[in-house]
Amino acid sequence: MAKIAVLGYGVVGSGTVELFYKNKESIIKKAGKELDIKYILDIRDFPGNPYESKLTKSIDDIWNDDEVTLVAEVMGGVNPAFDFVKGCLERGKSVVTSNKELVAKKGAELLKIAERNGCNFLFEASTGGAIPIIRPLHQCLAANTITGIAGILNGTTNFILTKMVDEQMDFGEALKIAQQLGYAEKDPTADIEGHDACRKICILSSLAFGKHVYPDWVHCEGITRITPEDALYAESWGGAVKLIGSVKRMEDGKILPIVRPAFVCSANQLSHVSDVFNGIMVYGDAIDQVMFYGRGAGKLPTASAIVADIIDAAKMNGTSVSQRWEDSSDNSFIADYKDDVVSFYVRADGASKESVAKAFGDVEYLSRENQPESELAFVAPEMAERDFDAKLKLLDGKVLGAVRILNLEG
Amino acid sequence: MAKIAVLGYGVVGSGTVELFYKNKESIIKKAGKELDIKYILDIRDFPGNPYESKLTKSIDDIWNDDEVTLVAEVMGGVNPAFDFVKGCLERGKSVVTSNKELVAKKGAELLKIAERNGCNFLFEASTGGAIPIIRPLHQCLAANTITGIAGILNGTTNFILTKMVDEQMDFGEALKIAQQLGYAEKDPTADIEGHDACRKICILSSLAFGKHVYPDWVHCEGITRITPEDALYAESWGGAVKLIGSVKRMEDGKILPIVRPAFVCSANQLSHVSDVFNGIMVYGDAIDQVMFYGRGAGKLPTASAIVADIIDAAKMNGTSVSQRWEDSSDNSFIADYKDDVVSFYVRADGASKESVAKAFGDVEYLSRENQPESELAFVAPEMAERDFDAKLKLLDGKVLGAVRILNLEG
Repeated sequence: MAKIAVLGYGVVGSGTVELFYKNKESIIKKAGKELDIKYILDIRDFPGNPYESKLTKSIDDIWNDDEVTLVAEVMGGVNPAFDFVKGCLERGKSVVTSNKELVAKKGAELLKIAERNGCNFLFEASTGGAIPIIRPLHQCLAANTITGIAGILNGTTNFILTKMVDEQMDFGEALKIAQQLGYAEKDPTADIEGHDACRKICILSSLAFGKHVYPDWVHCEGITRITPEDALYAESWGGAVKLIGSVKRMEDGKILPIVRPAFVCSANQLSHVSDVFNGIMVYGDAIDQVMFYGRGAGKLPTASAIVADIIDAAKMNGTSVSQRWEDSSDNSFIADYKDDVVSFYVRADGASKESVAKAFGDVEYLSRENQPESELAFVAPEMAERDFDAKLKLLDGKVLGAVRILNLEG
Repeated sequence: MAKIAVLGYGVVGSGTVELFYKNKESIIKKAGKELDIKYILDIRDFPGNPYESKLTKSIDDIWNDDEVTLVAEVMGGVNPAFDFVKGCLERGKSVVTSNKELVAKKGAELLKIAERNGCNFLFEASTGGAIPIIRPLHQCLAANTITGIAGILNGTTNFILTKMVDEQMDFGEALKIAQQLGYAEKDPTADIEGHDACRKICILSSLAFGKHVYPDWVHCEGITRITPEDALYAESWGGAVKLIGSVKRMEDGKILPIVRPAFVCSANQLSHVSDVFNGIMVYGDAIDQVMFYGRGAGKLPTASAIVADIIDAAKMNGTSVSQRWEDSSDNSFIADYKDDVVSFYVRADGASKESVAKAFGDVEYLSRENQPESELAFVAPEMAERDFDAKLKLLDGKVLGAVRILNLEG
């Protein structure tokens, strides 16, 4: 028998409780032991809630109850989640979490505490919601040397970009609809500026390459400057514009994690991942490429990953899994994105083809419906981004947009 | 220290050996113990092969060597693979396999023998090649009630269908190219008649629903009757024609596994799975839908799954996993596909719209480039397949093709 505590009774917390009781019989069968939820921690009151008797406002109730060996942290944010989780792990209680900020900022530390205390810190729900990615990446692809990962890791921005493509909405309009539908929060900064995707690529990078990648070390651009015109040019080029979080191993052994909008060609499965869905492509020396696709957020999809981790933690029964990485003291293993060789799409007003040729040589020009006479759009040849920046200044018109082209390996 | 034997030194066997030695250091680190390949079983000689000293022609060498605790069976076929694997499991040696025929026909029996002998029978490589699907389905989606699975499970037929769509080749031409490229065998029956996909959907059905589904119980149609015209109509309808292996739970609790070509709409990610790639969509009550995509066959992709299972078996060290199902004595839990409610695309020559209306009421007509005047193509409304068969006989023309429409849940 193992008792579970759920920390946080918001969307994911209530989904976790709901899903657990809905499929309790088969969950217990798969865990191989009796399981029940004993506590739900939340500072709010839920009068009349069917699980009212399990609600508590005190983490001490959970910390001090030896019956509780499994804890699901679904509060979000670093404070007080970090202290709560740390306290659980120090008491030998395994913790599963959907909290990407916590894992991205404190993962290495918490994994070490879990290891020291013979329990587990699992985080399948922190990246890709319902999509199995953490366990498969660590376990099913274990025979591979992973060379790169590229993913659509944020459903809100993918929804907005899909609207911009399908309905030629501008960014503001699409964001408003995302907010009305509950996909985007009132303050959408974390989504639209790419911070959410950044946390997730940090987690995937840390897991795939074995050293903690902190969000501050990752170059991160959001989608606020993407226009419906860019979306049209992406289409005419043969693909779609997506917010991509990626990491790849460089020739010198460093890794390059980055978050930015990118043109993704239609031969890449990621270009077909639309609406609020997420897709994560993993590249390895034996697999070539595999993609994982599904709902990256939401009540039950995220609860699915939380409860799967609960089942796993219950089965492992004190043995700690190898799914961990080392802390890193500095970012010397992170490559400078300005050195990466990349091709850019450029849209400019009032620029002459002569100046384009002078700066970039032969380029591929793109066209779109209702293209003004003074507008040029083209794809520049591959070069170090640093060099591209310098050449772009040679254009004699006004640069309206510049978006990287995703090459197949992230 | 654990010693490994590889049964079969063909494409997958040599890939397994190659991959193991290529990434040996990280594989051992992940397994948490020293590993090495001690035997490679094959009836052929490989003079000059760097692993010649490991080659043996006698299964007894492996059976009688207590050092060997892990066996990779990559021979294919039921005989003698079944006897070899059974003998290994009976001696407490864990077996991992890429042999879909063996798992589909003998899985329940071998899983029981493994359980009885405290070892494991793992088969990630039997379905979807490099794609992690067996472990994620069993473990990462464990919190879900699985409602259905639909997949492109055979790369050869997907390559042929992609050629038919992209280059308007007929079936015979496309098959010939597949054979020239080594994607299809000289005798392509198992691929083009759907038997290979059938074995895989049997494995997935057995795992998802807990009872062994034998291939003989599954209605199976291949792609030999699909024409470039059908592919064109699929496109004009808004999708693509694919060979789909699927299973779904019916309202009465039975399950319906089936293999057949189907029109897949472009909103379904499976429609974008092209060339030799595989894609497997899983539907569940919490996840909604997740898809797994990658190379379904090939030397290193399949070896990736084999070696991952070896690592897992090494880590589990005698504890047997719950990844198993019960044998089934009869097929009373399998629904009759003729009772399933389905919509069909129909192509007919010399049929009148009056007879179509009389048989099917209002239908959606499709058109294509160079459509002969005497040709009609339409999508019939949903009805039990049995009723569709009866109504189709009422048409006053010659039916040239009839292909099911995939509904989103398999």
